[in-house]
Amino acid sequence: MKKHNFSAGPCVLPQEVLQKASQAVLDLDHSGLSLIEISHRSKAFVDIMEKARALALELLGLEGKGYKALFLQGGASTQFLMVALNLLEKRAGYLNTGTWANKAINEAKIYDDIYEVASSKEANYNYIPKGYDIPEEYDYFHCTSNNTIFGTQIKAFPDSPIPMVCDMSSDIFSRTLDFSKFGIIYAGAQKNMGPAGTTLVVVKEDILGKVSRKIPSMMDYKKHIGSGSMFNTPPVFAVYTSMLTLEWLKNLGGIAAIEEENEKKARLIYSEIDLNPLFKGFAVKEDRSIMNATFTLENENLKETFETMLKEAGINGLNGHRSVGGYRASMYNALSLDSVKVLVEVMSELESKA
Amino acid sequence: MKKHNFSAGPCVLPQEVLQKASQAVLDLDHSGLSLIEISHRSKAFVDIMEKARALALELLGLEGKGYKALFLQGGASTQFLMVALNLLEKRAGYLNTGTWANKAINEAKIYDDIYEVASSKEANYNYIPKGYDIPEEYDYFHCTSNNTIFGTQIKAFPDSPIPMVCDMSSDIFSRTLDFSKFGIIYAGAQKNMGPAGTTLVVVKEDILGKVSRKIPSMMDYKKHIGSGSMFNTPPVFAVYTSMLTLEWLKNLGGIAAIEEENEKKARLIYSEIDLNPLFKGFAVKEDRSIMNATFTLENENLKETFETMLKEAGINGLNGHRSVGGYRASMYNALSLDSVKVLVEVMSELESKA
Repeated sequence: MKKHNFSAGPCVLPQEVLQKASQAVLDLDHSGLSLIEISHRSKAFVDIMEKARALALELLGLEGKGYKALFLQGGASTQFLMVALNLLEKRAGYLNTGTWANKAINEAKIYDDIYEVASSKEANYNYIPKGYDIPEEYDYFHCTSNNTIFGTQIKAFPDSPIPMVCDMSSDIFSRTLDFSKFGIIYAGAQKNMGPAGTTLVVVKEDILGKVSRKIPSMMDYKKHIGSGSMFNTPPVFAVYTSMLTLEWLKNLGGIAAIEEENEKKARLIYSEIDLNPLFKGFAVKEDRSIMNATFTLENENLKETFETMLKEAGINGLNGHRSVGGYRASMYNALSLDSVKVLVEVMSELESKA
Repeated sequence: MKKHNFSAGPCVLPQEVLQKASQAVLDLDHSGLSLIEISHRSKAFVDIMEKARALALELLGLEGKGYKALFLQGGASTQFLMVALNLLEKRAGYLNTGTWANKAINEAKIYDDIYEVASSKEANYNYIPKGYDIPEEYDYFHCTSNNTIFGTQIKAFPDSPIPMVCDMSSDIFSRTLDFSKFGIIYAGAQKNMGPAGTTLVVVKEDILGKVSRKIPSMMDYKKHIGSGSMFNTPPVFAVYTSMLTLEWLKNLGGIAAIEEENEKKARLIYSEIDLNPLFKGFAVKEDRSIMNATFTLENENLKETFETMLKEAGINGLNGHRSVGGYRASMYNALSLDSVKVLVEVMSELESKA
């Protein structure tokens, strides 16, 4: 039976990417050697790294605009730290939209003062704060574009007078944006880009080099840029599979094409949530994420029936995060509209049974 | 034609590991889902992580001795930093045996004083210093067990009065040692353990928690231990493939069995280097590494002939590092004795041609 993988990440990847990645583990491009056995300094791997970096900038429309793309290790969690080490001299402003924003704030606090420009904590983060000020004397402004746990998403980004840093781990490459508004964009690969194990960091070079501290080598964006994202041995499998996924996206027509699909999927699930009296959406409507739809089943007595039906339909990974409860349908780029249709049918069938 | 992969790392892996890893990228254990698509919090992946951690301790003989095994990201280069952040309060002693030891020293210097207990720099690191003192008032002593670039290896470790930290990236799981002499052992996976993208860290828990600084979460061994090596999304493919490689080693008979093989391979290449007048070993004999044999071709005029012969024999990755020149035969666990035989035949044939 076909599985419908709604996991919040690691998550569904395009089938053709899985096929090619699997083949490369046995034999990379008929070289007689496995992708994971060759030197990362070999031409074959250097080409892969360069292609992945170029594709990232191309898809984001950032070629020739002073940006560099890096594929690093350590997840977005390491970026919480690297951003502060590379940019924080006196004070930074953070938008608090939930769990991951909080983690970013806590890491940065080790190094200097952090000011929360706004927070939606009082409503368990079911909305995105708006209309806040970003003080222009600060070093940078940090926000989280999409909040997987709460199912909220920033629709309009502020015009920041200081470098804007954005954790786009869970919605990068899913929608068109003016990416040149950002000083740094970072994203763990394991949602829209590839397997866990690498993190894309897109940096505008001219915002670097302004702090007085000595930055440890592995934490220093300039060192990674200077060595072509190969300061040390890169995570070759994760980078290769990310390159394949970016190639897949480019062949589909890029971000604009996938955005159309993502919007169709989101409209389908949200209209079911709104029309079906058994379910209730968690996030306020205007801030609903097109990547993660969070909702609860109003009648707890139907829980067992619903979950049996989900299982029978081959639906996987729909459990909500413990801080919200209920369900979360993660609909990343590689999840097909068909999978969302199957889920919506189950929800609708539950209504007819109830 | 069969390739003989002498790469210094990433390097040759067992064929059965490549087969299983490739299959898991398509479908993990007939689950209908790819290894890289499932949640890292799923039972399937938690079991993989726990098995990998347990196998590491079992193979090292460290079960029940107060150690924890972690699979982290960022390579040994990140460990240079983490060791200092977690252990360095006032001063540490480092043994300087080459390029990687130097990198470890430079990262630690950001945080406090570092004292070189001994160095073989004056001889371009062609030997391992011996007979040095380790001051007992220091926080820890750091050494590098095997120096890939120079082809030297520590044969007898000192009895350190303070926690001994060892970078075993290039010879872990290759020879029997009393691993309980060490406070921390770390190793990038890409030599004897798996693909690039994860780093094994084995920590004796009771040496932690003694520094006064606030350690960033991702740099804190205690945080990683507390969350079962899943503080954030782990590099699932690299951890799974490492688990497969450790399983392969266990089935072979563990470290003692592979050590016998490794010694055969080393004896074979070094006796050719010593007997064949065309070649000269770089490292002093008593400190020769069983993992990386470094040597030069004395007659530069034969270089082209030799390299053509290597290519024709399917030998890959034999170039020496630029700081030593010449050749380097890396003979990690998964490289077969047959591959070394092929290399030695080519060397011997060159002599008969010359």
